[in-house]
Amino acid sequence: MRTQVGIIGAGPAGLLLSHLLHQRGISSVVLEKHSREHVERRVRAGVLEQGTVDTLVRAGVGDRLLREGLPHQGIELRYGAESHRIAFDKLVPGRSITVYGQQEVVKDLIAARIEAGGDIRFEVDDVALHSLRERPYLTFGDGERLDCDVIAGCDGFHGVSRPSVPDGVLTVYERAYPFAWLGVLARVAPSADELVYARSERGFALHSMRSPEISRFYLQVPPGTDPGDWPDERIWAELKTRLETVPGFTLATGEIFEKSVTPMRGFVTEPMQYGRLYLAGDAAHIVPPTGAKGLNLAVADVRVLTEALDSFFATGSADLLDGYSRACLKRVWRAQHFSWWMTTLLHTFDTDDDYGRRLQVSHLDHVTSSEAAATTLAENYVGLP
Amino acid sequence: MRTQVGIIGAGPAGLLLSHLLHQRGISSVVLEKHSREHVERRVRAGVLEQGTVDTLVRAGVGDRLLREGLPHQGIELRYGAESHRIAFDKLVPGRSITVYGQQEVVKDLIAARIEAGGDIRFEVDDVALHSLRERPYLTFGDGERLDCDVIAGCDGFHGVSRPSVPDGVLTVYERAYPFAWLGVLARVAPSADELVYARSERGFALHSMRSPEISRFYLQVPPGTDPGDWPDERIWAELKTRLETVPGFTLATGEIFEKSVTPMRGFVTEPMQYGRLYLAGDAAHIVPPTGAKGLNLAVADVRVLTEALDSFFATGSADLLDGYSRACLKRVWRAQHFSWWMTTLLHTFDTDDDYGRRLQVSHLDHVTSSEAAATTLAENYVGLP
Repeated sequence: MRTQVGIIGAGPAGLLLSHLLHQRGISSVVLEKHSREHVERRVRAGVLEQGTVDTLVRAGVGDRLLREGLPHQGIELRYGAESHRIAFDKLVPGRSITVYGQQEVVKDLIAARIEAGGDIRFEVDDVALHSLRERPYLTFGDGERLDCDVIAGCDGFHGVSRPSVPDGVLTVYERAYPFAWLGVLARVAPSADELVYARSERGFALHSMRSPEISRFYLQVPPGTDPGDWPDERIWAELKTRLETVPGFTLATGEIFEKSVTPMRGFVTEPMQYGRLYLAGDAAHIVPPTGAKGLNLAVADVRVLTEALDSFFATGSADLLDGYSRACLKRVWRAQHFSWWMTTLLHTFDTDDDYGRRLQVSHLDHVTSSEAAATTLAENYVGLP
Repeated sequence: MRTQVGIIGAGPAGLLLSHLLHQRGISSVVLEKHSREHVERRVRAGVLEQGTVDTLVRAGVGDRLLREGLPHQGIELRYGAESHRIAFDKLVPGRSITVYGQQEVVKDLIAARIEAGGDIRFEVDDVALHSLRERPYLTFGDGERLDCDVIAGCDGFHGVSRPSVPDGVLTVYERAYPFAWLGVLARVAPSADELVYARSERGFALHSMRSPEISRFYLQVPPGTDPGDWPDERIWAELKTRLETVPGFTLATGEIFEKSVTPMRGFVTEPMQYGRLYLAGDAAHIVPPTGAKGLNLAVADVRVLTEALDSFFATGSADLLDGYSRACLKRVWRAQHFSWWMTTLLHTFDTDDDYGRRLQVSHLDHVTSSEAAATTLAENYVGLP
């Protein structure tokens, strides 16, 4: 079996890449370890930058997103007894975010690929990468082989692509945070129109949503927390303590139907390529979710990679492919820094002394009172060009 | 002996307070441990915010400052092989900084006080504070006694005022940095028109100036560094390594006539008052010098304290005096945060790993490419209203 681009992973990065390549007349095959049902139900990010929305709409997979996505013109920062709105419409006019679950993006992309006769193989075992420096090929399942010109590693942080690069080629940069996020989905209307990022002495909390009927919440918890230790009553009590800090705000509760714990980590590999293997999305970099950048970075990588592959197959020149990492990494590090900044602004750290806590509140006071400081948050949040 | 306000310390805070009170018809006596020559030669800060210049000019002690001070419309950030200007005239129009040594401010204030018949006692030993909760008085020298309505503690971080407050009253917030600054004065024309803040892998360096003939330099060094370990040749070599990183910049050298090592510390006491004792300037708070905020904070404290004392003596109401700390502390913490921010942006930390170093460079890239981020630096540097 032969294709131009062998894509590992049917997450947003791999599926979008396959879709965009198809539109440029470039063939690809997507190999995915899990079932279609699994990837379509996997709960992940839910905040799309303006540029991500634009990319999906331009690619013709934005109809449902435009219909069902919730455009937001701001977020709220809550701390002490204060709550302040960071107004995107005022600070970065014309740019906003859209709340739309990552799994919905995945559903839309799978539907589009299948409609176009795309080749996505689900539940594929034992994918292995070979001969990455020239004439690469993939093996999988029961001795099947996929020859390709290029391999795109879109299989996430735990995938096989990155570990297939020989030792010593990639430099890894990493930062572990001393806490995790307990995320829950609840069948209850959101208690606020926009996302509420709350810093409390007991830790961070985020009020978010997925639809007018489904709310999404996160709580800062110790790393390695077992979701089983958090019965629903405990979750609601803690959310109320951290969020009901301002007059007039009451948290509506409902049935919790999903609970999971996410570790918080910053991670970058440099370069994001080796031979004819190109890594995109979580396979190459991870951010703590505070800045809502993970999915958006994956889409940005895919935009760059698509242009480079288009040029490669159209002209035979590998110049853009050779510069793929360099083109991505500036944005990747910007997102790393912004995500670190949002994380340290809003979380409690056991290592912080009273001086550090005062510094954090002074920082929040500044972000919520200086238009320039609020604009730096807004422009990073909606996504830098 | 009796006065309305007993002022401890003839630094900028104490002298300016005495001067402003005199203009409002309020009497004061300044007690200073050192000689006039000593305080007039003590090398300290040299960057005055717009608000500090305005205060000195309005108070009638700004003639020489306006004549000899060097107004700057920007600073330069240098890192890697890049150098970027933060342009105050563009980012915060109408506000700028003026380079004028702190000891020059002190000379001007002493001259003004003496001309007005002010009472400044130099070389006063054994100052002690008594009866702070009511009818306070000071003793000093050979059993002399100064009765006063209010005491202003303007005697710096190591002065007697703060330790005279009973244990348990003040809460101290403190952050020690794992490095110090080696500062030198050299008889050589500045090699750049504006201040150059340089981040290098070998540590921070600052190119500054005091006059068209005198340059001021700082080098990040380990804490506890002995200036004796830094002969002139070593200082120039290190400054060249850290500053000559961009094409066309050559550091001119000359005779070094002053060397000193300053520890880097953040420190705040809350509240800044007890009974009828009010602390101002370094007696109440210290910032690392990176943001050039120390002298400016002292002047801001004195502005607030003057208004409060004016109201107290005019109306008998202590409302403003009671609110003195509260009125000052928001600005104090803003300066603490900004100084921490500038310090972590530009210094190397032994504890930083490669991830941290990349984050720092990404942060610098952002400050020098986003107008909003550059504006947050500019507005803090020239001084928030």
